[in-house]
Amino acid sequence: MGLNLPIALDAMGGEKAPYSVVHGAKIALREVPELTFRFYGDEALIAPLLHKLKPLRDVSEIIHTETAVHMHEKPAVALRQRRDSSMRLAINAVSKGEACAVVSGGNTGALMMMSKYVFKTLKGIERPAITAFMPAQQRDVAMLDMGANVDCGPEHLLQFAIMGDAYARVVLGVQRPKVALLNVGAEDLKGHGLVQSAHQLLKDSNLPIDYVGFVEGNDILEGTVDVVVTDGFTGNIALKTAEGAARLIYNSMRTAIENSLSAKIGYLLAKPALTMALRKFDPRAHNGAILLGLNGIAVKSHGGTDAKGFANAIQVAVKLVRQDINTRIIEELNQMHSHNKPETSSIIPVISAATTSETMM
Amino acid sequence: MGLNLPIALDAMGGEKAPYSVVHGAKIALREVPELTFRFYGDEALIAPLLHKLKPLRDVSEIIHTETAVHMHEKPAVALRQRRDSSMRLAINAVSKGEACAVVSGGNTGALMMMSKYVFKTLKGIERPAITAFMPAQQRDVAMLDMGANVDCGPEHLLQFAIMGDAYARVVLGVQRPKVALLNVGAEDLKGHGLVQSAHQLLKDSNLPIDYVGFVEGNDILEGTVDVVVTDGFTGNIALKTAEGAARLIYNSMRTAIENSLSAKIGYLLAKPALTMALRKFDPRAHNGAILLGLNGIAVKSHGGTDAKGFANAIQVAVKLVRQDINTRIIEELNQMHSHNKPETSSIIPVISAATTSETMM
Repeated sequence: MGLNLPIALDAMGGEKAPYSVVHGAKIALREVPELTFRFYGDEALIAPLLHKLKPLRDVSEIIHTETAVHMHEKPAVALRQRRDSSMRLAINAVSKGEACAVVSGGNTGALMMMSKYVFKTLKGIERPAITAFMPAQQRDVAMLDMGANVDCGPEHLLQFAIMGDAYARVVLGVQRPKVALLNVGAEDLKGHGLVQSAHQLLKDSNLPIDYVGFVEGNDILEGTVDVVVTDGFTGNIALKTAEGAARLIYNSMRTAIENSLSAKIGYLLAKPALTMALRKFDPRAHNGAILLGLNGIAVKSHGGTDAKGFANAIQVAVKLVRQDINTRIIEELNQMHSHNKPETSSIIPVISAATTSETMM
Repeated sequence: MGLNLPIALDAMGGEKAPYSVVHGAKIALREVPELTFRFYGDEALIAPLLHKLKPLRDVSEIIHTETAVHMHEKPAVALRQRRDSSMRLAINAVSKGEACAVVSGGNTGALMMMSKYVFKTLKGIERPAITAFMPAQQRDVAMLDMGANVDCGPEHLLQFAIMGDAYARVVLGVQRPKVALLNVGAEDLKGHGLVQSAHQLLKDSNLPIDYVGFVEGNDILEGTVDVVVTDGFTGNIALKTAEGAARLIYNSMRTAIENSLSAKIGYLLAKPALTMALRKFDPRAHNGAILLGLNGIAVKSHGGTDAKGFANAIQVAVKLVRQDINTRIIEELNQMHSHNKPETSSIIPVISAATTSETMM
């Protein structure tokens, strides 16, 4: 058995918490025996759940907290007023070295703001981005930003490209990921000022990444590329629209099958093959988005997920810890600096600037 | 039989043109006997196709053109250099009163630019928007802009809301359409500056429309509202991502069925019910996006569609002509002016401004 892998869990975050969190930890532990857990939250709720789960109980500690961040609380308010919440103390555990990563299914904005405040951004990265992976025709695709930054400058998209490249190598295991910018057309002249400027930056930056230019919305799920870079507004809408399309098709098929006897019988015959084929679209299998670009690993689980989904988010955290994602990103940033000749480095001033780890209080 | 409904067709636009155009006209004529057609394009290609189709031939005229707009030609170049193209002459036919509407499956940007140049925008509308409808859980949803304006101001989104409302009433037959802005969250404070400002404008404008606030990506296909308003960048990406998601699910299911005998048999049993249920996702049934906001009706057919899809685009044009879409939009704009008290009218200066029908040459 290798070294311990202590993970801090916000036991109060998510609709089915703390049940989904405790049972998610149980599932993850079966896969990764090195895991140990620190559960942050209401001990009176967590202890009875944990009590029944023998192997998990032995590697777990409960840290009682009186408060939790509400799902609809404003992030700035949560940052100021929830310093002793389960979410905040779980984040603090990572900065104190008591855990390798934090996983929470709670308020996304609050997790983002608190993590940024506690961890600070990596040197050379101005803004963290929510990075997730989506199922595609051939293999999974990493996409960022999924909603952390609704307003972006071209330099942020450049930083997202660097982070996404490292993420695809670490989490998806792609040797040399193809990185693209999301746009309304593949031709060089398409799109608005933001993508045009970012495109130019990426082409001129001598980055050690395989930047392939623009892709369109349909390319995301076709798996034409490995990393899709976009601003948080567009990324969030693309993700939710894809989820909506999948749900609409499923629901239409389900209704059709329920209303026809021969379709019902047909479905039973086709079910094993279909279940296998559609498994990759199970949102639980893609649960766990990382807040990329911070001096610490924070993984966001979907608020509505169950134990299986939460276990997947823990496993995403494990991969990121084991592969040392942040060191990879820093290496890539440094490589870019050494590749850039002095006369070209001025075009990427933001990367050259010091870390912008201003407080947000 | 009522009055004739002459439609100008760009017979050279689209991958399967002129075959798809001629046979699309044949299908549309069966549904709408009042239709007559002006086919613009290469007579040597159109005439033999038309010759075989007796009832269509009798209500059609071919106007021979020497050139056509290429699919990847820059719109500005097409506007300057393709004044005698099939697309341009078909557009001109509408402005000359020889046709009620133009339908083209050619270069979208060129169709947009030429139509705007020839027709000019409606008074009170600064920019035309590509408007399409998408299948949703309950009923179809109108969405705009789908890609004509990648950069928008809040006043443009306000104008899109007015046009979308009229469109939903005319084409979708909804009495009082619910109109919403696409955003990353439903709460008032979410989103970037553009949607925030547009939200404020819509709330303050005393428009005679049912503006319900923000919706998210998944709401588009759930049919929570009837009209979804967004900028052309976001709209284009949302549309294509939804198409990509649908294709991914279909392909995965098809592969699963092909590789399993019991699934194949099951599929045959379920097929009639599924075909019925999935019919509404057939892109051909949604083919035909209008360039809304112009003094003339121009409908864009998907470039890759077949005769059935092209026929649908013609029928969209028929609906718009019969319901007099542009008069409806103008009425709504006027109603807004009369509803607005003098002290509030200053917040929507663009609507009060004169038509911006500057040439783009």
